[in-house]
Amino acid sequence: MSAHEQERPHVDKYIEALREFLRQPSISAQDRGVKECAQMLSEMMNRFGISSKLVPVKDGQPVVLGELKSGRADRTLLIYDHYDVQPPEPLDEWIHPPFSADLEDERIWSRGASDSKGNILAYLAAADVILRRGKELPINLKFIFEGEEEIGSPHLPEFVENNKDLLRADAVVCCDGGLDPSGSPVISLGLKGILYVEMRCSAAKTDLHSSRAPLVTNPAWRLVWALNTLKDRDGRIIVPGWLDDVKVPTTSDLEIADRIPFDEMKLKEEYGVKELLGGKVGADALRSLLFDPTCTICGFLTGYTGPKSKTVLPKSAFAKIDFRLVYDQDPDDLFRKLRKHLEAQGFADIEIDMLGRLEPSRTPPTASIVRAAAKAARNVYGVEPVICPNSPGSGPDYLFTKKLKMDSIWTGCAPAFSNAHAPNEFITRSSLASGIRYAVETIENFADPKL
Amino acid sequence: MSAHEQERPHVDKYIEALREFLRQPSISAQDRGVKECAQMLSEMMNRFGISSKLVPVKDGQPVVLGELKSGRADRTLLIYDHYDVQPPEPLDEWIHPPFSADLEDERIWSRGASDSKGNILAYLAAADVILRRGKELPINLKFIFEGEEEIGSPHLPEFVENNKDLLRADAVVCCDGGLDPSGSPVISLGLKGILYVEMRCSAAKTDLHSSRAPLVTNPAWRLVWALNTLKDRDGRIIVPGWLDDVKVPTTSDLEIADRIPFDEMKLKEEYGVKELLGGKVGADALRSLLFDPTCTICGFLTGYTGPKSKTVLPKSAFAKIDFRLVYDQDPDDLFRKLRKHLEAQGFADIEIDMLGRLEPSRTPPTASIVRAAAKAARNVYGVEPVICPNSPGSGPDYLFTKKLKMDSIWTGCAPAFSNAHAPNEFITRSSLASGIRYAVETIENFADPKL
Repeated sequence: MSAHEQERPHVDKYIEALREFLRQPSISAQDRGVKECAQMLSEMMNRFGISSKLVPVKDGQPVVLGELKSGRADRTLLIYDHYDVQPPEPLDEWIHPPFSADLEDERIWSRGASDSKGNILAYLAAADVILRRGKELPINLKFIFEGEEEIGSPHLPEFVENNKDLLRADAVVCCDGGLDPSGSPVISLGLKGILYVEMRCSAAKTDLHSSRAPLVTNPAWRLVWALNTLKDRDGRIIVPGWLDDVKVPTTSDLEIADRIPFDEMKLKEEYGVKELLGGKVGADALRSLLFDPTCTICGFLTGYTGPKSKTVLPKSAFAKIDFRLVYDQDPDDLFRKLRKHLEAQGFADIEIDMLGRLEPSRTPPTASIVRAAAKAARNVYGVEPVICPNSPGSGPDYLFTKKLKMDSIWTGCAPAFSNAHAPNEFITRSSLASGIRYAVETIENFADPKL
Repeated sequence: MSAHEQERPHVDKYIEALREFLRQPSISAQDRGVKECAQMLSEMMNRFGISSKLVPVKDGQPVVLGELKSGRADRTLLIYDHYDVQPPEPLDEWIHPPFSADLEDERIWSRGASDSKGNILAYLAAADVILRRGKELPINLKFIFEGEEEIGSPHLPEFVENNKDLLRADAVVCCDGGLDPSGSPVISLGLKGILYVEMRCSAAKTDLHSSRAPLVTNPAWRLVWALNTLKDRDGRIIVPGWLDDVKVPTTSDLEIADRIPFDEMKLKEEYGVKELLGGKVGADALRSLLFDPTCTICGFLTGYTGPKSKTVLPKSAFAKIDFRLVYDQDPDDLFRKLRKHLEAQGFADIEIDMLGRLEPSRTPPTASIVRAAAKAARNVYGVEPVICPNSPGSGPDYLFTKKLKMDSIWTGCAPAFSNAHAPNEFITRSSLASGIRYAVETIENFADPKL
């Protein structure tokens, strides 16, 4: 009987543990059930033989830590994920209630099933599986599960800064990941950073009749003019110095990127567009997605926006702007450059607030944790994993790569199209079973010094 | 006993007629009570000896016409005003219910009291006063009262076009006007025109995660860039040909303008600003207010505009833009120029709709109706009237000056700060009494060929 078959009978146990975990809402954006969920997670870890503790965070959600020491190894792997979930709204689009964890068609339906409680469970189960085989763990495991990832991990930087020794390891697996549409696990070697700002301008103390336009500043015009100095019509960010710290992708990065399957037609259909931005195609489009810094107007509001017309000179205007950053741009440095640029352009009247920041991260493709996970992926899924040199999204990965100087990968077992951040989120029974095996083998492979 | 004193006993009668008129709501924006109010107005005119009829308007509100023929004169004066009113919201800020027409402190409190049912009543009463003196009217009077002024007079152009002969007169008094803060009647010789457009841009079929920014068009950026090509940071409208038809103010216009009292400090206090736009002061600020074409962003909406941050790439964006036009700019021509400009600038993807249009109007300061009203103003109010060569606001005046080739003035008896378009609108008993005398004398003066 293979190790694979030995695990089968236990999957039901892990499915039930996951369903219990899912039935406890943990909506960080609404502060709903998050602390209760942290408590439940910590207790579950203890049941699985992982020594766990819950660390309260002032004005935030608890961090759940865990440790499982090996008697025979010095090497340590840190597992990161988040136990909080997105809000379930709109509720009326769910076929199964969002916290029912109903099991139907071999799927568990619940908010958080694929993002990311299923992934947490896979790693807890992996430790349990190894221990139940009567084996000593081949490496030490540490766990850090936060409860604020879905709201931008606001307290994690300080927590990491204050707990460097506690978190020290030889590598990190951020298991908040999943499979690509063909069923291959994706292994991401880095994330873009983010600088999210709000720009505001105000003038008169009330909205005025628009006939007053010759006499009173229009904050909406000020904001349009100011935004226009940030990015040109070809999409280039033109704030002085913005690109100074950008490390262009290496030949190796580009080679790895070019191996990623990229279905342009499918993407265009999904977005409902005739062509991609700037007429990009194929490898160029994918390289742009992975490696280009961006500047996105996420929101803009001023004046009258109801039906028909109202002749109003607005008293204020604001815009929300999201800058995605690539290695090795620094959000704090760029925020200062942005402010300085606006002042230099004559827009000192525009207030600017930083609403979010995450630094970009990179792990080399040659890192041993990458090889450990890739070998596990080949064995468990029978396919080559998709190695992604840089993910277009953002996360707190830099805390591990930059602050703690560890290699870190993002990889998990969530199925593609499993409705993360949308109604009817699910995880399948078989993807959890594979995910447990993927975790077991990643851990075992990482123990091998010859890998 | 002077003519003045003879009228006194009758004022109460007109006050009561006005209160009845005010108690009938006529909110064109909400299609509330407008037709009933038109019926009431027509009946009231008949009671006052004015031969009146109500003309239904397809998909619109009725026009109320009236005529009073003189047995001894060929000269005719057309009186224009509107019987519809602004919505009364916010209701909880009214001390007296908005359609109670409560009489307190010598004031009648009601939506429409000063804008503009009081002004209508003043002219109806004026006709009645002259007839009751046992006199033949010195000129013919015609009346046109519309029920859609507060929503931009959408059906008046077609009505005027189809009823040119019916409306033919030697001059027009648009009595939707009032007094300045010092108590002097304002006589406006023209209005700015308006072109109100909505610009829209769409891209993906749904809002996307902002990490997709390298691949998908951001409609908010498209709109910001397009708007930026309309007006430069010094406030100059830079659409090619926009200013081609602008007639610069004449020396006479400027002389008249410079006589208008202009309290810059008070304006700045009212707006809550430290300085006027571009640091304008005194006569320059007033000239700009009266004579400059404008381009105002009245509204802009895209993406996420709630608290904190959301990383969204919006699927669409729209802006509402109000262009005020000066003599002799043509909104239809400018709309074509705007569309052509956007196409030439590479913004053919931006849809543009015309939501409103009014042409600018001008009447020469030497017109006899100006002299007739000015003389009446001096006699009734004991002060020089404020002659305004051009009003910063807009209205359907061009239908009279351009389409019917008549001189037209805007002047009325509403007190300054009488809360038009705001809660607690009122008219005072004495302002109505003076308004009736102002109307009587304007009519009588206009009959004098030697004026």
